[in-house]
Amino acid sequence: MRSLIICVTFFMSIGLSAQTNAFEYLQPLPDSPVIPDTNLQSNAKIALGKQLFFDVRLSGNGTVSCNSCHNLAASADAEGSALNMKARGITRNTPSLWNIGHMSTYYWDARAPSLEAQAADHLLDPRIMNMSNELKLVKRITAISDYRAAFKAAFKDQKVSIQNVAKAIATFERTLNTPDSRFDLYIKGDKSQLSKAAKRGLTLFNDKGCLSCHFGVNFAGPAPGPALKMGDGFYEMFPTYRGTYYEEKYHFTDDLGRYRVTLDPEHKVMWRVSSLRNIVDTAPYFHNGAVNDIREAIKIMSKVQFNFDITDAEVEDILAFLETLTGKYPEITLPRLPEEKGLSVIDQH
Amino acid sequence: MRSLIICVTFFMSIGLSAQTNAFEYLQPLPDSPVIPDTNLQSNAKIALGKQLFFDVRLSGNGTVSCNSCHNLAASADAEGSALNMKARGITRNTPSLWNIGHMSTYYWDARAPSLEAQAADHLLDPRIMNMSNELKLVKRITAISDYRAAFKAAFKDQKVSIQNVAKAIATFERTLNTPDSRFDLYIKGDKSQLSKAAKRGLTLFNDKGCLSCHFGVNFAGPAPGPALKMGDGFYEMFPTYRGTYYEEKYHFTDDLGRYRVTLDPEHKVMWRVSSLRNIVDTAPYFHNGAVNDIREAIKIMSKVQFNFDITDAEVEDILAFLETLTGKYPEITLPRLPEEKGLSVIDQH
Repeated sequence: MRSLIICVTFFMSIGLSAQTNAFEYLQPLPDSPVIPDTNLQSNAKIALGKQLFFDVRLSGNGTVSCNSCHNLAASADAEGSALNMKARGITRNTPSLWNIGHMSTYYWDARAPSLEAQAADHLLDPRIMNMSNELKLVKRITAISDYRAAFKAAFKDQKVSIQNVAKAIATFERTLNTPDSRFDLYIKGDKSQLSKAAKRGLTLFNDKGCLSCHFGVNFAGPAPGPALKMGDGFYEMFPTYRGTYYEEKYHFTDDLGRYRVTLDPEHKVMWRVSSLRNIVDTAPYFHNGAVNDIREAIKIMSKVQFNFDITDAEVEDILAFLETLTGKYPEITLPRLPEEKGLSVIDQH
Repeated sequence: MRSLIICVTFFMSIGLSAQTNAFEYLQPLPDSPVIPDTNLQSNAKIALGKQLFFDVRLSGNGTVSCNSCHNLAASADAEGSALNMKARGITRNTPSLWNIGHMSTYYWDARAPSLEAQAADHLLDPRIMNMSNELKLVKRITAISDYRAAFKAAFKDQKVSIQNVAKAIATFERTLNTPDSRFDLYIKGDKSQLSKAAKRGLTLFNDKGCLSCHFGVNFAGPAPGPALKMGDGFYEMFPTYRGTYYEEKYHFTDDLGRYRVTLDPEHKVMWRVSSLRNIVDTAPYFHNGAVNDIREAIKIMSKVQFNFDITDAEVEDILAFLETLTGKYPEITLPRLPEEKGLSVIDQH
């Protein structure tokens, strides 16, 4: 239980009520996520991480890169990725990587305490990158002379290792932020950025209780910092009200969430709170990606979390507010992947 | 047989001998490939084509984009793509898209007469993009308002159609060129660009007969123009000398090439001549991607095409020449894909 902080207890522990002081929890996106001491940012490491992110040779059979599912040309990730991943046993919606450095845990069930741990885990997962072991990964990368040089530049005299591959990728991912949303400009003082509907939506977002979980710089609970150590997740039950029409229609409870990691019955249908930044760009919704339409998603949240039937007008106002959470996506230039002249490092047989 | 021009007859028809006039066939990469009258370039069309190229929503289940296999971050394409494609019935090496506009036919077996035809074919191919029919594709794209606007800008009052999707993608692909290789600078007059070894290699490349097929702007035979209409392919037999150790080892003749399209026995193991531009960056080699190492590939070509055992020193010289064919890859900025606010256009069920 040490790493499990539940919304309500969190608010109790810091002695505030979400209902009365909610607007204190509205914060603009900082210039940078919290950078761990064990993996400082550097230009060399970011450049290397970007190459690795786009390199299919990091997968066992040389066909899948990070970008294959977490498509940085899109705001969301591979749309409907839950679909053909099902055949490989992956039934969860691919999370967006934008602003991901502001999370304190990784995966829907928070089973990785850091971006580094998540990346290393993905590389070896037979359902994802399927690199059978670290030796195979290291052998493949060290066969490419420009990668050897790039690792040397990024990690000094340290060797190529799965930890360093993961560190470089995480370093790049921490640059994937979308600042200057209309909401950010609003909270910094430019009150003209929110329309009347969006302002009504923000009030509803607080009054209905949404903000009690979706607060903080990423609208996903506390970011790592004094209140929450990196690796300590911020969790909620979804659905809170069980047995609804929606639960049945969208099969929400087919997946028991964090319980699958801990086997603690108290963790059944507990999930890491998701970010709402860029939410109108990241359909489909929920852990299983079962809901295509954000209006339906808002209705579902109202019903299954608060047992409250929201009106269509309220849905429109909340949506107007959520639309202001779309930030400015940085321009990304494709890296050029190093090639070992005249040699493929993938075993074709 | 109309569209089938075989190397030897081509040379006869223009009244030249490759052996004596070969250097006339060395040409720098032009500024642009031949643009078909039926699909002129425009900035609007190129920008739309770039978005479509990176958009996974163009595949049936919303998980694969053109860039998934033809990875523009790489010089080659998805390395070893022949690998896990086998499960889907695709046993051929993904061709590089760089300078692809300079080809006169598409696919290893030249079954598409244009880039437009190839793109349209890929969209519907159940093994590739698996869009079950045009209606599904059109419905999905027209559900995204920014795409509707982009199609209007690119194609005036014409509707979204599979032909226009393919045209936009082809327009973008015709911008994917790598000019200014050392070879190009050499042939334009800067003789210092080729080392002594590379110059020996070029002489060998001519003397051994390589140039008799790998000539022209793309080292793949004639580009579309007076000598060859777009859609008329330039073909060769591979292997020419049958029954070698290499043929058996690498299973080259498991695939009968153009015969699979025409069922004409004369087309058995006939293939479109491949480009050699950027060849040291595009391992693995040959139609089935079975050969990882370019030195082995050079030896194989010598043996199975000319029944000639090449020396290691000759291999090194030819490789030194081939290394000069690597051009300058343009910087590509990722497009931002249009999203329909709060809505996924992929059916999750």
